Amino acid sequence: MPRTRSDLPATGPVRLGPDSRAALRPAAVGIDTGFWQARRASNAHVSIPQGPALLEAAGNLHNLRLAAGTAAGEFQGAYPFVDTDVYKWLEAAAWQLAQASDGDQAPDDDLAAEVGRIVALVAGAQQPDGYLNTWFQLVKGGERYKDLRWGHELYCAGHLIQAALAHHRATGSGELLDVARKFADHIDSVFGPPGSGKPIDGIDGHPEVETALVELYRETGERRYLDLAAYFVDRYGHGLLGGEAYCQDRIPLREATNVEGHAVRQLYLLAAAADLATETGDTELRTAAERLWHAMTTTKTHLTGGLGAHHEEEDFGDPYELPNERAYCETCAAIASIQWSWRMALLTGEARYSDLIERTLFNGFLAGVSLDGERWLYVNPLQVRDGHTDPGGDQSARRTRWFRCACCPPNVMRLLASLEHYLASSDDNGLQIHQYVSGRYASDQAVIRSETDYPWHGTIALTVEETPAEPWTLSLRIPQWCREFRVRCGQETYEGPAADGWLRLERTWSPGDQVVLELSLEPRLTAADPRVDAVRGCVAIERGPLVYCLEGVDHPGGGLDDIVVDTTRPLAVKHRPDLLGGVTTVVAAGSRRHLPDTGWWPYAPVDESPDSPQQDGEPVELTAVPYYAWANREDGSMRVWLPTS
Amino acid sequence: MPRTRSDLPATGPVRLGPDSRAALRPAAVGIDTGFWQARRASNAHVSIPQGPALLEAAGNLHNLRLAAGTAAGEFQGAYPFVDTDVYKWLEAAAWQLAQASDGDQAPDDDLAAEVGRIVALVAGAQQPDGYLNTWFQLVKGGERYKDLRWGHELYCAGHLIQAALAHHRATGSGELLDVARKFADHIDSVFGPPGSGKPIDGIDGHPEVETALVELYRETGERRYLDLAAYFVDRYGHGLLGGEAYCQDRIPLREATNVEGHAVRQLYLLAAAADLATETGDTELRTAAERLWHAMTTTKTHLTGGLGAHHEEEDFGDPYELPNERAYCETCAAIASIQWSWRMALLTGEARYSDLIERTLFNGFLAGVSLDGERWLYVNPLQVRDGHTDPGGDQSARRTRWFRCACCPPNVMRLLASLEHYLASSDDNGLQIHQYVSGRYASDQAVIRSETDYPWHGTIALTVEETPAEPWTLSLRIPQWCREFRVRCGQETYEGPAADGWLRLERTWSPGDQVVLELSLEPRLTAADPRVDAVRGCVAIERGPLVYCLEGVDHPGGGLDDIVVDTTRPLAVKHRPDLLGGVTTVVAAGSRRHLPDTGWWPYAPVDESPDSPQQDGEPVELTAVPYYAWANREDGSMRVWLPTS
Repeated sequence: MPRTRSDLPATGPVRLGPDSRAALRPAAVGIDTGFWQARRASNAHVSIPQGPALLEAAGNLHNLRLAAGTAAGEFQGAYPFVDTDVYKWLEAAAWQLAQASDGDQAPDDDLAAEVGRIVALVAGAQQPDGYLNTWFQLVKGGERYKDLRWGHELYCAGHLIQAALAHHRATGSGELLDVARKFADHIDSVFGPPGSGKPIDGIDGHPEVETALVELYRETGERRYLDLAAYFVDRYGHGLLGGEAYCQDRIPLREATNVEGHAVRQLYLLAAAADLATETGDTELRTAAERLWHAMTTTKTHLTGGLGAHHEEEDFGDPYELPNERAYCETCAAIASIQWSWRMALLTGEARYSDLIERTLFNGFLAGVSLDGERWLYVNPLQVRDGHTDPGGDQSARRTRWFRCACCPPNVMRLLASLEHYLASSDDNGLQIHQYVSGRYASDQAVIRSETDYPWHGTIALTVEETPAEPWTLSLRIPQWCREFRVRCGQETYEGPAADGWLRLERTWSPGDQVVLELSLEPRLTAADPRVDAVRGCVAIERGPLVYCLEGVDHPGGGLDDIVVDTTRPLAVKHRPDLLGGVTTVVAAGSRRHLPDTGWWPYAPVDESPDSPQQDGEPVELTAVPYYAWANREDGSMRVWLPTS
Repeated sequence: MPRTRSDLPATGPVRLGPDSRAALRPAAVGIDTGFWQARRASNAHVSIPQGPALLEAAGNLHNLRLAAGTAAGEFQGAYPFVDTDVYKWLEAAAWQLAQASDGDQAPDDDLAAEVGRIVALVAGAQQPDGYLNTWFQLVKGGERYKDLRWGHELYCAGHLIQAALAHHRATGSGELLDVARKFADHIDSVFGPPGSGKPIDGIDGHPEVETALVELYRETGERRYLDLAAYFVDRYGHGLLGGEAYCQDRIPLREATNVEGHAVRQLYLLAAAADLATETGDTELRTAAERLWHAMTTTKTHLTGGLGAHHEEEDFGDPYELPNERAYCETCAAIASIQWSWRMALLTGEARYSDLIERTLFNGFLAGVSLDGERWLYVNPLQVRDGHTDPGGDQSARRTRWFRCACCPPNVMRLLASLEHYLASSDDNGLQIHQYVSGRYASDQAVIRSETDYPWHGTIALTVEETPAEPWTLSLRIPQWCREFRVRCGQETYEGPAADGWLRLERTWSPGDQVVLELSLEPRLTAADPRVDAVRGCVAIERGPLVYCLEGVDHPGGGLDDIVVDTTRPLAVKHRPDLLGGVTTVVAAGSRRHLPDTGWWPYAPVDESPDSPQQDGEPVELTAVPYYAWANREDGSMRVWLPTS
């Protein structure tokens, strides 16, 4: 039975406040078939349901019981932020409940019961004055806010607030929201600028509470939450945490010229800056966020949208320092990037932010979870060499069932479960489609049905289901990667280019009107800015929004490190329903080097170097698979960037 | 006054035992002028004399007094191995005393007094049963050997033994040697294989004690020290430390196919393996060491001889994973590599080991200390980008006065102070010159005077000063990098190549005979094996044994990251006595790219990439300076590998 506009979940992780300066408002979307539905099904039926057992096994729930005094034993886990694994799972489950409330009720009841049980555990662990952090309550003897640099107390509060908002929006229950507000009120009573009468002038080593406080303001209308978020954001960069870039404390955002330090911390802080610019009209903060986004994309973003160049400190590297095998690209950083970019998209109305979201969703983010929803990557390298010795642990290049620092898995769960909140927007003039899915898009008054097999095929068929009588504008994002497109709208046809990334169709629409967008998905070879040293002399294979890679398993008989791609030969596309849950592969011509033995020293004068090995190499057909699907067959080698000689 | 053979210090860090299977014996060398004399002068007059004050300031000496009960207060320092800073300084000072005993006495007395004072502190801190580690005595309440993975107790013992051997050899005093033997005997009473009756079957997370025990066996003739070293070496790789590659515990050396894990740990362990193969004739261990040396040089060695590819865990990367900006190349790893290679050179007689020693000495090692001897690098990157944000601390790319983990500075001091022990060897047939310095080389019966301005000039003039009447062979190493050489010996002339790296001159020699070796020092452009992804499309400038780099300070007006080298134009050599203490620079033709603004995304289809920027770039004269001398002027950018387009 077709759903109406009102069936679609209308509010997500970003609601706008009454005084918002955003160009666009989030619009409702329902995903019902296609690429993302499959990934969300695995999230709904495997990842999220398995969460409570994993949190039980890791001790996170046990810690809550300990804090509540309903169990005995030792604190489990190595970090002061283990509670956030529970909060992020709760947020994911709440968004999932919001999904499920429209459909089949059977799995809902189980999940709702699990959510209710765990919400009660959280509520039970809270201290009478609102404070809640099991590590400090149990391990540190109730000591509070003494180690802001590493303690993560406000970071934990932020995830609690976000879980509570999702729970409230999904279920209407105020149970978890009461817990979160009590903690937020406690924080507001403790933290404030000098002269405010609050006992502590401080910030958390890991930004996160700021976006949560803005959203709590939006939910409750209480301005003091917004003010507290603004206070926190502006106190970074003034040495309160010792001045380290790692903690975002080296330089204030308003003065910074590029992103730096721990990637997730930087990105959560910038998401908050975008929220504040939206709600308060702070143009200096907006300008800083725009400047830093541009600096990040031009100099510090991997092809996959992945962010972070160093294992040590999980931080951004220098400009153009974008290693492949040591790309950090934490899955959480991809998520944080999407959250920041979505706020920028709403604030500015500019399409490029959603270009980056699309790239990140299909590549740097989605690689973080296995196709079966059961195994995870914390770091997302762009290369694993033949002969790789993996250290195991959280920073492994091999998919892992759960992590000691398990921040990424429930973060993936919450983003997949709330994905529809990042896909479309509306304004007074109409509806803007940012990402193409099969399902429905709805502004306040219009509903559009979308059918597509994107990203495998480039045709998106849109049908107007509900529309006001007055003319309005349907805006379609033409992806940055797309060199050719065509739109048929009734008898009219439009072809590119779309200068600012939007194709705008202003019409008087009638139910049944059709718009067919065709994006050319010709596979392409991509090169990098020559300052990206790590990929000099290499190309990557892309098709539509997907970055491709070679895997060793598809290239037996010598591994990947001697593979050279022939850029003079055409790329071919092969649909493979049998492979990796059904993917389109790209086939390229290449060769395998046979290098002469040059003794014990691998460096030689240029004029003594072996002749171009491409001419001598053995021809090899190269089969590229989407990067997001790598490491789902065996623990082998992988390369995104391929040498051309 | 010319010194005679007997004046030269005859024994160094590697003496051979009575049953040694080594092909070569260490020969005595005295360095009196030239390149290395200048570096050693800075070591003798600045680095070593400043050591005690730095060790006092960092608390290392205070800890010894605390352990002796002669001072009150808290333990200083963050690591269980802080005692080794003292031991390595003592070793350096002892070798320095051995130098000075031939010359000017004035500085000697001060240094000897300092050494005596600190030896007494060490002796005072030792516990009655021989155990000595201030961290465990003071911080861990006397707990012992409970945390072998991280405790470094045997590692500390190893450095104590090495300091004691140097002290004994330099001064004849047994005071420190008694302390060291007492600790070694204690360890021998505690550690042993199952069934030995010893209480612990275990190894240290950081190999080091093994080479020290072999040398203690050589000094004392006590076979049980050799047996203990052999036991330790063979217990790595069996999971006693949890099986981590980091601690050399993933796989036994005898089975390993490449170097792995923490670089310094791997290299110290391999040095011990070479020692054991030398003393015991264990051919399986010798084969493993040869195999691993070859694997390391072909796949895991930077152009500078630097070793270690990851900041995280300070470890080797995968084969051909040799990043530039994140090259770790710990100074201590360069030293460990020299120590291992020297043992291999003696064991096998093969020249390639000394080829790597030369490369490492002049580049990866020497960059670790500033020209003035006062500032240090712990990590030695091959690139620092324009706009580099340095985190400071031990892993900084900026020279630092001292480190929290101060392993490298006194390690540099001890190698410079004992450098003459790594330069020449002898066997029953004659003398082999491995490294060219100005000074004297002496086998048991012959003395050769050497005059050279190497590495600035390629002429080495050798004069026979003492010789037996019987014919013997003077062997000269022809460096692996050298494509043209000439030797004049009386009326005869030899020209390359030298197939196995040695030019052998068998003669009946007379005092006054002259041999002049001329090594062509034409500057050259060097390329890497194409599997070294990090330097694809790049060349490096080299001249003789020196690797060169560009520094930002020599290329004002736009930094280094847009510099392209023109490989079609000749390189020029310019001697610059005014620069960096006097260096030969290499001047190359290049250009600076001017890239068009391509918007916010730095990746584009190959056919839309900007034209070859080399054609559009602004011509720039590139001035390359020796890598060892970088970062002695300002904290700017630096590159070893230069893009060719």
